[in-house]
Amino acid sequence: MAETYWADGIHNKRAVFDLYFRKLPFGNGFGVFAGLEKIVEFLKEFRFSESDLEYLRSLGYEENFLDYLKSIRFTGNLRSMAEGELVFGNEPMLRIEAPLAEAQLIETALLNIVNYQTLIATKAARIKHVAGDEVLLEFGTRRAHEFDAALWGTRAAFIGGFNGTSNVKAGKLFGIPVSGTHAHAMVQAYQDDYTAFYKYAQRHKDCVFLVDTYDTLRSGVPNAIKVAKELGDKINFKAIRLDSGDMAYLSKEARKMLDDAGFKNTKIVASSDLDEYTIINLKAQGAKIDIWGIGTKLITSFEQAALGAVYKLVSIENEGRMTDTIKISSNPEKVTTPGIKDVYRIINRKTRKSEGDYITLSTEKPEQEERIKMFHPVHTYISKYVEDFEAKQLHHDIFVDGEYVYELPDIQEIQSFSQKNLGYLWEEYLRTMNPQEYPVDLSQKCWDNKMASIEKVRNKVEAMK
Amino acid sequence: MAETYWADGIHNKRAVFDLYFRKLPFGNGFGVFAGLEKIVEFLKEFRFSESDLEYLRSLGYEENFLDYLKSIRFTGNLRSMAEGELVFGNEPMLRIEAPLAEAQLIETALLNIVNYQTLIATKAARIKHVAGDEVLLEFGTRRAHEFDAALWGTRAAFIGGFNGTSNVKAGKLFGIPVSGTHAHAMVQAYQDDYTAFYKYAQRHKDCVFLVDTYDTLRSGVPNAIKVAKELGDKINFKAIRLDSGDMAYLSKEARKMLDDAGFKNTKIVASSDLDEYTIINLKAQGAKIDIWGIGTKLITSFEQAALGAVYKLVSIENEGRMTDTIKISSNPEKVTTPGIKDVYRIINRKTRKSEGDYITLSTEKPEQEERIKMFHPVHTYISKYVEDFEAKQLHHDIFVDGEYVYELPDIQEIQSFSQKNLGYLWEEYLRTMNPQEYPVDLSQKCWDNKMASIEKVRNKVEAMK
Repeated sequence: MAETYWADGIHNKRAVFDLYFRKLPFGNGFGVFAGLEKIVEFLKEFRFSESDLEYLRSLGYEENFLDYLKSIRFTGNLRSMAEGELVFGNEPMLRIEAPLAEAQLIETALLNIVNYQTLIATKAARIKHVAGDEVLLEFGTRRAHEFDAALWGTRAAFIGGFNGTSNVKAGKLFGIPVSGTHAHAMVQAYQDDYTAFYKYAQRHKDCVFLVDTYDTLRSGVPNAIKVAKELGDKINFKAIRLDSGDMAYLSKEARKMLDDAGFKNTKIVASSDLDEYTIINLKAQGAKIDIWGIGTKLITSFEQAALGAVYKLVSIENEGRMTDTIKISSNPEKVTTPGIKDVYRIINRKTRKSEGDYITLSTEKPEQEERIKMFHPVHTYISKYVEDFEAKQLHHDIFVDGEYVYELPDIQEIQSFSQKNLGYLWEEYLRTMNPQEYPVDLSQKCWDNKMASIEKVRNKVEAMK
Repeated sequence: MAETYWADGIHNKRAVFDLYFRKLPFGNGFGVFAGLEKIVEFLKEFRFSESDLEYLRSLGYEENFLDYLKSIRFTGNLRSMAEGELVFGNEPMLRIEAPLAEAQLIETALLNIVNYQTLIATKAARIKHVAGDEVLLEFGTRRAHEFDAALWGTRAAFIGGFNGTSNVKAGKLFGIPVSGTHAHAMVQAYQDDYTAFYKYAQRHKDCVFLVDTYDTLRSGVPNAIKVAKELGDKINFKAIRLDSGDMAYLSKEARKMLDDAGFKNTKIVASSDLDEYTIINLKAQGAKIDIWGIGTKLITSFEQAALGAVYKLVSIENEGRMTDTIKISSNPEKVTTPGIKDVYRIINRKTRKSEGDYITLSTEKPEQEERIKMFHPVHTYISKYVEDFEAKQLHHDIFVDGEYVYELPDIQEIQSFSQKNLGYLWEEYLRTMNPQEYPVDLSQKCWDNKMASIEKVRNKVEAMK
């Protein structure tokens, strides 16, 4: 495609693309945007190496085109939501305005990054919602889809509300607290629970013992208690970990045994294919679990392993001025929204809750308006007038003319920002099952522009007959 | 854990670990092993960098231990299946024999690699099974879980039988044929199908036109035909691509239009959330599709996004000799099989078909036996005697005493090897739905050893009371 543009001399036409998904994953009421840090890294480094060009040469591309690729850098504008921002269907997370060929060459990488990281941050936020103030640890590296997913997925989990990870490299790279336990292999290496726990306790002040290698209630828990009693103040007997069997039953029994032995502050960690659904169920059964280790179901987003974000051309330079473009589909939800747009969150000044998101053409200034009409973009009779609001711009300038102008917050700030954002949503949008649909509305101008574009294409297709 | 071993002076005890999964994914009758190339790369480079040690220092590890980590390299033995080998539940794909601490430090990386790549190679093989000789293209990069998955997943798809990929970097790194089409954005950039196809055709001898941007049958296909007629021999009108709508209907109608226009050799590419199930259904409906572009459902293994391979200690040095170890569980399928073991495929010399896989203690030599008894490891009454067989060793030496001694085949060889291996399986094991269960049996000695280990642990737990 880039070669076609280049040969035709249109590779430097200004083009505007929106990056968005159509439908929230997991039937959730909100999404949590993540991926910007990696995108910044990618765009700063975006270029073709000598070996890339060598490979393209072997595929038959001509030298003049390779010369052009050699010099290519990202010279466009990127506007993006901040990481941790709440996001909904059909609203742009990113808006890219760049020379056409550049904008197309970065498409796949941007989609790959946002699709995965936003999916995991959203899954993590769902799990956080049911776990409340209990501790959530990311334990999924062995099941992640290769190395990068283990690292960036862990980071996304932290953005969504997790407290720590067993992935030490993610700890190192992103400043996420690391936390884990020994494995069954350590107990097997010492051939019995008692020796293994005792040896571990000699090296670690803070002890978490994995108690299910041989028999949780008959060997694991009693031996953990025995070691803790023998060593007394020399260790902090912080927790035991259950990793198999009936978690509801075992946790209640283990809790009793710990309490009876005087270890009322010793926590119980559970891990074993957990997710938000098992947590809800275990809580309903009165399980005595304080800390949740979540692996496979989070890091692979097992319930729904892909987010369907797309990257659509919405406007392109034509004879010196920008012309809006649309993609029609027999699938109504796949029709794109043309035009250069902004996204606002409309916050009611009285309730401090959001009335919905509001997509405008970038020429509009809703923050200066007294009253706006918000209406459903398909079922247009569902509408309301909103007054006394703040219109919060959700996009920030990240790159301007190829220059990086943003400052990435640290990971703790991103997590706090995400938590704070949830405060703007009524509880009805937050619940795990069957949440209310949050309004994402088009301004009247934006909606009119879309209808006009549809009409134009329809006339063109009719004229073909 | 490693620190505990090191402080206790047992970090250099010889330890043997098996890496295997318990259950085949997707209800499939076989798995396709992948991941060895990356494992070789990982083990060759395995070490702690200065910045790693700096980070561990910040977590409070003591200097003597960090000195030990600084000098650590992989010095053990790795035996592994070749990539493309068929693999079944409960048989080791890898056997690691190394100093205890080393073997534990590499665990998570090895699991991460094998779990993902084997999952994708297996999914690809399923899709290949239903597609037969039709062309399969990997189109999933935008939905893959971050960059590494897009690259290594594409490679695994090729091992499983795919013909090419749209991921150009995977083409460069692994020598996989690259293939793709232009996107909707190109048609939008030119504002109509005709101009876009015409411009593309000026730069590309081989043309594949994406026809569903505005209206497949009323605009896309007619314009593709128009351009092809106008340009005649100047281009090869190789294919059109359908990416949305009713694929069965559209492909049949488009086929008629192409045939009527004299383009009987022009192929039809389909893509749009396809997998083995949609392919079966589309074929049943008489869809006229020649080339399948498979994205999300393959690269994320959407149907089942994780393989549950585990890494279990099976033997450890104790006072100078190796002692077998076991992990018991109230979950019967989670009980491990102790001992240093080999895996054989028992091929009947007459039929050239496999009788099943046969796991022995490494002291056994089934290839020298006249007759072996194969029996189900749980339902032991299901048994047979096999004579006139070849016992094919499935493991190869990859590292010996830390030295790399293997030669990785190239990717085309791996694919051919995988296809050839399928020839050893009766059709009943290959079918997509409800395949027969392929036998994975333990030798009598291996089974006796397991029972004795279970008994030993049980007596120990009883004695605790």
